[in-house]
Amino acid sequence: MDQIPILKIGNVLLVTIQIDIHDRLALALQDSLTNRIAQTGARGVIIDISAVEMVDSFIGRVFANVAAMSRILDAETVLVGMRPEVAITIVELGMSLHGVRTALNVDKGLALLADLLKSPIEEETHDLTES
Amino acid sequence: MDQIPILKIGNVLLVTIQIDIHDRLALALQDSLTNRIAQTGARGVIIDISAVEMVDSFIGRVFANVAAMSRILDAETVLVGMRPEVAITIVELGMSLHGVRTALNVDKGLALLADLLKSPIEEETHDLTES
Repeated sequence: MDQIPILKIGNVLLVTIQIDIHDRLALALQDSLTNRIAQTGARGVIIDISAVEMVDSFIGRVFANVAAMSRILDAETVLVGMRPEVAITIVELGMSLHGVRTALNVDKGLALLADLLKSPIEEETHDLTES
Repeated sequence: MDQIPILKIGNVLLVTIQIDIHDRLALALQDSLTNRIAQTGARGVIIDISAVEMVDSFIGRVFANVAAMSRILDAETVLVGMRPEVAITIVELGMSLHGVRTALNVDKGLALLADLLKSPIEEETHDLTES
């Protein structure tokens, strides 16, 4: 298997990482995710890493890059399902995961995305009713 | 990696199969799926096989079994993302996939499940308004 499937659920792309990702696969994921965002106009990306037992600094940087690239393409990225030991490693290694939002599981990630994507529109409609 | 992650999205469980599943893994999946349905009270199961290049008769039977077990536990199963060549193999091998619903992708699978789960309730409310 040379590619991680990207599932589309409404306007959210969902990726479940099931194998301990090596560097080339992480870069391939970064490419295919950004392409799928551009193709589908998705507004959110959820990366599930509940099966991932180890995140090193390279993979951490790939996640941060995916989040930055997605944001330029107008999509928010949420990392979900992180194991406690992975969280410990990330802090102990001093990795920042800059710009990457996290949630406990896919359900909470979807709720977070719904909130993030809803709020600007709500503010707009609020302005309309006031004027 | 000895287990396939099962994601919960609302009242639906989502499994993405990314590796060519061997027999023991298929049986493990069957066990963990039925357990998760019982634990979570999920009403639907979506199995994404877009990354699966080959389905043999054993795996086909496991899918049919998962669907039958889920139904007893009050959940519908939808197989999504089947590759055309897999569909060809299934027909040519004379496999039946009895009781397994299919959809083109996760979005359509979710829509199918929403329809399936909604209709009995709608009929009930319809009866109520008539009486």
